[in-house]
Amino acid sequence: MQRLVYVDNNATTQVDPLVFEAMRPLLVDRYGNPSSIHAFASSVAKDIEQAREQMASAIGAEHATEIIFTSSGTESDNTAIRSALASRAGRKRIVISRVEHPAILTMCRYLEREGITVTQLPVAVDGTLSLLDLREAMADDVAVVSLMAANNETGVLFPIEEAAAIAHEHGALFHTDAVQAVGKIALNMKTSNVDMLALSGHKIHAPKGIGALFVRRGRRFRPFMLGGHQERGRRGGTENVAGIVALGKAAQLCEQHLTEEQGRVRALRDRLEAGLLQVRGTRVNGHLEKRLPGTTNVSFKSVEGEAILLHLDEHGICASSGSACTSGSLEPSHVLRAMGVPFNYAHGSIRFSLGRFNSAGDVDHILAVMPGIIERLREISPFKAV
Amino acid sequence: MQRLVYVDNNATTQVDPLVFEAMRPLLVDRYGNPSSIHAFASSVAKDIEQAREQMASAIGAEHATEIIFTSSGTESDNTAIRSALASRAGRKRIVISRVEHPAILTMCRYLEREGITVTQLPVAVDGTLSLLDLREAMADDVAVVSLMAANNETGVLFPIEEAAAIAHEHGALFHTDAVQAVGKIALNMKTSNVDMLALSGHKIHAPKGIGALFVRRGRRFRPFMLGGHQERGRRGGTENVAGIVALGKAAQLCEQHLTEEQGRVRALRDRLEAGLLQVRGTRVNGHLEKRLPGTTNVSFKSVEGEAILLHLDEHGICASSGSACTSGSLEPSHVLRAMGVPFNYAHGSIRFSLGRFNSAGDVDHILAVMPGIIERLREISPFKAV
Repeated sequence: MQRLVYVDNNATTQVDPLVFEAMRPLLVDRYGNPSSIHAFASSVAKDIEQAREQMASAIGAEHATEIIFTSSGTESDNTAIRSALASRAGRKRIVISRVEHPAILTMCRYLEREGITVTQLPVAVDGTLSLLDLREAMADDVAVVSLMAANNETGVLFPIEEAAAIAHEHGALFHTDAVQAVGKIALNMKTSNVDMLALSGHKIHAPKGIGALFVRRGRRFRPFMLGGHQERGRRGGTENVAGIVALGKAAQLCEQHLTEEQGRVRALRDRLEAGLLQVRGTRVNGHLEKRLPGTTNVSFKSVEGEAILLHLDEHGICASSGSACTSGSLEPSHVLRAMGVPFNYAHGSIRFSLGRFNSAGDVDHILAVMPGIIERLREISPFKAV
Repeated sequence: MQRLVYVDNNATTQVDPLVFEAMRPLLVDRYGNPSSIHAFASSVAKDIEQAREQMASAIGAEHATEIIFTSSGTESDNTAIRSALASRAGRKRIVISRVEHPAILTMCRYLEREGITVTQLPVAVDGTLSLLDLREAMADDVAVVSLMAANNETGVLFPIEEAAAIAHEHGALFHTDAVQAVGKIALNMKTSNVDMLALSGHKIHAPKGIGALFVRRGRRFRPFMLGGHQERGRRGGTENVAGIVALGKAAQLCEQHLTEEQGRVRALRDRLEAGLLQVRGTRVNGHLEKRLPGTTNVSFKSVEGEAILLHLDEHGICASSGSACTSGSLEPSHVLRAMGVPFNYAHGSIRFSLGRFNSAGDVDHILAVMPGIIERLREISPFKAV
């Protein structure tokens, strides 16, 4: 069988075998409903609370009760925005950036129909956000500022603490979509200004279908998913117990290995990036320092990203062009457009996102095949040659 | 180890080992994001479509695309109600019954704050719904009628086809919370009047954290979870792939075994019920015929239900008093109150819900211990003796 080189960790990650082992009993023997009274089921409620502690600890939250389990990062984002609007009634504006995830962007498009004004902040050519632009956009009609902690396509980090402070000066809440940041960079909610933070299990080696929302104690909250008394009345619906236990274990592993992994993954990414830049007509999209350790977004001039992906795929290499969450479209990604990446570069952009299970051999394999792929594609390219 | 007698299948069910085997590869090897382009991930999208076919088939839906996967029955219910209100703009009333699940009731309480009027239909002393009451409640201001197919506490069935026809006469949509009905009674969406139908995986031997919403082709739909293009733009958020595959397999098993299971489970339930009725001061709550095959809700006069549960628990028997989804409260259940079950019976009600994995031995065990438990509790009861 062909070697699989999975460098699409910003799209989703392999479930850590330790996470699978932690969740398995909840899928096999311990199937009770945590809301039931009998001991067989109520013991499961303790597993949920342990997972909540693990999740809180991994982001440095002071109180486990600040964690609400949801079904995804998208649900967490939707919940945060809706809750903020409800708790800042009368304020009818939201401030976001142009490069937010569809979980925020699509929500905002819908809200515009409901009479909410959405201000989208631009980003610089390196994908960074200017706090001056945020200051300028702020006024007392803003209910919530929502900015991602790290961009899914470029890995570029936003100054969320400073942004949160600016939001607060104007009485607005601050939410961050930290789906790509959690488990990859240190977060400490104890010393943070952030009011709400969304995260997703499947980006940190838990399965798909589980997420969480941090809501700082004392902040008003309005539930999005309305039903039973689960999650202290903050999220209705029978708990995804196995997913919650998996997320708790995954969070614990991230916390334990963060420093070591950051260094190791960054070294792999840097070597990969340096090797790719040896190919003619290549550039990196996004700020080189203010970035996640595992992500590199590289553009190959005058080549179609989709074509590169297909060739990589033939070599067992799984990468991404633009965001996997919105694939199926051949438009250049909204992130690269917002950064002003030139057309003939934007179309040939590939995101390599490395993580826990990548090795030096993976980097070697990519670097061995990539120059040949680009050369062949440029020979048949309809675009102007480099 | 003590024998476990799990008769709380309306709260949640054991994951069928065949379901676990079907989902396991998606949690171990096949972890790709179905939105990614590479073959490793995109093959997973095929698994999702197979599960959609299986789910559609189990409820007799004509088109697999009528199935939208969600995170729970609660999300499906929330989505249906919100979508119906959006697609019947101008109509500001909802008609439900008094015995709906919290996923509908809590949603309706919130909607009342947003200016929606909610009409709650009563039920008879046997838990059944009168179509005359529905007819009387209808007018052209009703956006949606939402009635459960089967009650979670009593198993009583509602005449959803007739109710849907009445809703349509007034231009309203009809939604059914069929969380307790799917997999237990035959449903055929091809010949049905129902516009939307909510179901949950963990009630049919799939894990917690996965659900689905049937939306009839041609009906206008507005997404509830807003994000990426997943589920043909109808539900954002990375798919819970393992959960979806599990739900598909669980649906297939239900379809294959429905007739056989109905008969077998009904026979067990009937023998259990007959045995329990031998105990003095005992009655069954709910219509004896128009009922799910596996559910019996039995009241023991002048005894506390919670006390019975604790004693059953000591004998390894897992049952429920009222709905597990809203436990933690000692109020009599809203369902029994709506039925007008007298106080001293309502407080001593126990729901036994049988399913696929129950055996004759389970019934024997319950019948062996129950009379003694009731007798001892009545000796110490503060209520008037029977």
